[in-house]
Amino acid sequence: MDEIEQNQISTLTRVLLEDTQQFREEFLDYPTFEQVQFYLQLDEELRKILYTIIKPKEMAEIFDLVEQEVDDVEPYVLEMGRKYAVEMLLEMSKDDVVDILKQLSPENARIYLKLLPREEVSDIMELFQYPDGVAGALMTTEYVAISATQTVAEALQVVKSQSREAEIINYAYVVDRNECLVGIVSLRELLANSDDVLIPDIMIDRIVSVSVSQSQESVAQKIKDYDLVAIPVVTEDDVLLGIITVDDIIDVIDESAVSDYSGLAGVDVEEVSKNVWQSALQRLPWLIALMLLAMLTTSLISRYKGVLEINQTLSIFITLITGTAGNAGTQALAVTVRKLAIKEQVMPAKFIINELTIGLITGTLTGTVVFFAVSILQQNMLTGFIVAISMLVSILVATLAGNLIPMLIVKFGVDPAVASGPFISTLSDLTSIIIYFGIASVIFGYLS
Amino acid sequence: MDEIEQNQISTLTRVLLEDTQQFREEFLDYPTFEQVQFYLQLDEELRKILYTIIKPKEMAEIFDLVEQEVDDVEPYVLEMGRKYAVEMLLEMSKDDVVDILKQLSPENARIYLKLLPREEVSDIMELFQYPDGVAGALMTTEYVAISATQTVAEALQVVKSQSREAEIINYAYVVDRNECLVGIVSLRELLANSDDVLIPDIMIDRIVSVSVSQSQESVAQKIKDYDLVAIPVVTEDDVLLGIITVDDIIDVIDESAVSDYSGLAGVDVEEVSKNVWQSALQRLPWLIALMLLAMLTTSLISRYKGVLEINQTLSIFITLITGTAGNAGTQALAVTVRKLAIKEQVMPAKFIINELTIGLITGTLTGTVVFFAVSILQQNMLTGFIVAISMLVSILVATLAGNLIPMLIVKFGVDPAVASGPFISTLSDLTSIIIYFGIASVIFGYLS
Repeated sequence: MDEIEQNQISTLTRVLLEDTQQFREEFLDYPTFEQVQFYLQLDEELRKILYTIIKPKEMAEIFDLVEQEVDDVEPYVLEMGRKYAVEMLLEMSKDDVVDILKQLSPENARIYLKLLPREEVSDIMELFQYPDGVAGALMTTEYVAISATQTVAEALQVVKSQSREAEIINYAYVVDRNECLVGIVSLRELLANSDDVLIPDIMIDRIVSVSVSQSQESVAQKIKDYDLVAIPVVTEDDVLLGIITVDDIIDVIDESAVSDYSGLAGVDVEEVSKNVWQSALQRLPWLIALMLLAMLTTSLISRYKGVLEINQTLSIFITLITGTAGNAGTQALAVTVRKLAIKEQVMPAKFIINELTIGLITGTLTGTVVFFAVSILQQNMLTGFIVAISMLVSILVATLAGNLIPMLIVKFGVDPAVASGPFISTLSDLTSIIIYFGIASVIFGYLS
Repeated sequence: MDEIEQNQISTLTRVLLEDTQQFREEFLDYPTFEQVQFYLQLDEELRKILYTIIKPKEMAEIFDLVEQEVDDVEPYVLEMGRKYAVEMLLEMSKDDVVDILKQLSPENARIYLKLLPREEVSDIMELFQYPDGVAGALMTTEYVAISATQTVAEALQVVKSQSREAEIINYAYVVDRNECLVGIVSLRELLANSDDVLIPDIMIDRIVSVSVSQSQESVAQKIKDYDLVAIPVVTEDDVLLGIITVDDIIDVIDESAVSDYSGLAGVDVEEVSKNVWQSALQRLPWLIALMLLAMLTTSLISRYKGVLEINQTLSIFITLITGTAGNAGTQALAVTVRKLAIKEQVMPAKFIINELTIGLITGTLTGTVVFFAVSILQQNMLTGFIVAISMLVSILVATLAGNLIPMLIVKFGVDPAVASGPFISTLSDLTSIIIYFGIASVIFGYLS
């Protein structure tokens, strides 16, 4: 009952070469996900044998998942031969066909578009126009549409006749003569009511829908909030264009979580299938860029050589202050990015004041601890005081930076997740050094 | 068509006080999620009026979401009065009832359990036993069960009769006389086939299921991989215990993404509804703990005072080396935590060697850049060499630490996400200092 295992794959591969009929029966008995795992383990030669055994219609279901798994789907499509590929595409959801055509070279995409029936092509061209990331690019046009003049029995007949093609049959969408969405009936309601009940009597007319140009993240939020299996996609005039189903949304939620996580770490954590050189090259830009920022910090420190000569012990506490402030900045950054991501209704001013207060509290408490620790260890309350007050101010500034920078990035229309923890802590190294040596200079200047 | 707005809430609140019948009609017309938003804005007095207008059965659907939104559901349950609350609980899914009872004080939970009918209680007690985080705690027992001896018409009759109570009706689960799951039929198939077809002819018998004690994350992965709306939960002997639906799984995926993100940042990013004091107190443990670790680094630096006196410029480059190595460590950490989370099949040895190689490549390139930068800026190739070689080794060690620490944590059965970016960078401050001053001491010792 678990994922297909390596020895099952070997056995099945042997059967593929030996007994076509037995292979068909065994292979088609597996769940689609496991068929895909098997398919992806085959080399081109074996896949070509498979195409002679498995019908295009059966391949359609498998290929829907293959397209999501492989980086480049083009060689798979080309090796099938045109006739087989076109028949397969005809059996797939139109949104999946668009996803596949988008991965082909322009010439090949044109060739396959020409081979498809004209009525399919117009639907596909319509889906083609939506840029990645908006609701339109995620929707499918295969839904069950009924009319408000129908009875339950008639509506059930429509559901039955479309049950093979429709992406989901949990809901039937009620449209008027202008294709406007006027209501939704769940299959549950259709089954629970008697045959002669009229659709308007049982349909929900306060519709939860999304606009075709809305971001996929906001669609995901809505499906999650309202606990839906599918959500209708409409134009500004409420014309029904398609539906988005929960399984596509799960992938969106997952991808956006991974990209937030990658952002915070300053590295694409999905570097999975890459080799070490590619992985290293991917990590380098951030590393080098931040190192150049750190060089700035370094040149600042060298300017304060005079202060360091007066009190050599100051250099001992550099990492203590920069490290702790950097940690506080990373915390503030993560909280802010998250708040911005879930679009919690916050007044920017109130949010900033809150973070400032949090920085003040954590800074004061941390500063107090460090004051006693340094004063006792160094037997020098002046050093303890300088380190403690620098710690307080550095934490305050780092917390504020962790809060303000993602908010500013959002202002410029960029995903706040690009502000990484390493960036905030390297930046806070710079500010902390200015604060630390600045405070030390002032105090030494005052004392001398 | 969007979330309920503040002025709608005000209007509806006025209607609640003025016209009971009109309120009922208007309120029940809203989608459940918006009813919940309205409900949560009311004070206790107004909620008590609402209970007199909205039936327990209608409240059941609302309260299912309320339970997920509020921190403590107990006052809401108590204010309803026992009779109303019990009637409401009877209308809810058993898994949701368990979630609510778990939030009540033990005495109150006992009181409500006693008031529920005996046959309900035994189901509920069974669900009670599963600890949070496993499949059993997420499943519901309200599914459609049919027998392999039935025809399509008979099965459809069962679906119809249970369509109100069942959590989903997309699948009917085929069980034998021992309650063992032997097949699954989709409602789609039932509707597409004629009445006299026998269930065994159309059911899927290669079942994708999860075990009752499996982790919720692995259930989520399976639902995602197989694109399911629901998955059956079985014992080791394949006895069907319940089903888990995709809407509960979305919450699991979301929560685990948030907890990974929080882990990397070293702060609970869901500190949303808290006040500044609570937020500050939540950030402090990590801050103080890491500061104590940084104190260790500080005392190490003070041991190397001798080296610092020989070459005062060394102190200038401390943050450059510790900062850059910390960033490399954070990157390696995030990649490793992610790989462990998706349980990619990796040989530990190969994985470690890969990360070491990546550390070597990034360290060498970064070290080369820093060698030229420092040599030119300081007009001193010896300092440039010491800083560059320290940078290389520090990055190597930090990358290895970012890779090994989460792997070790997993060995001890803990979620690898607890290893935070701030922890790795503070730890790497320590190792980088040892490396930097160690290398400097050796070279100076050799030269003198």
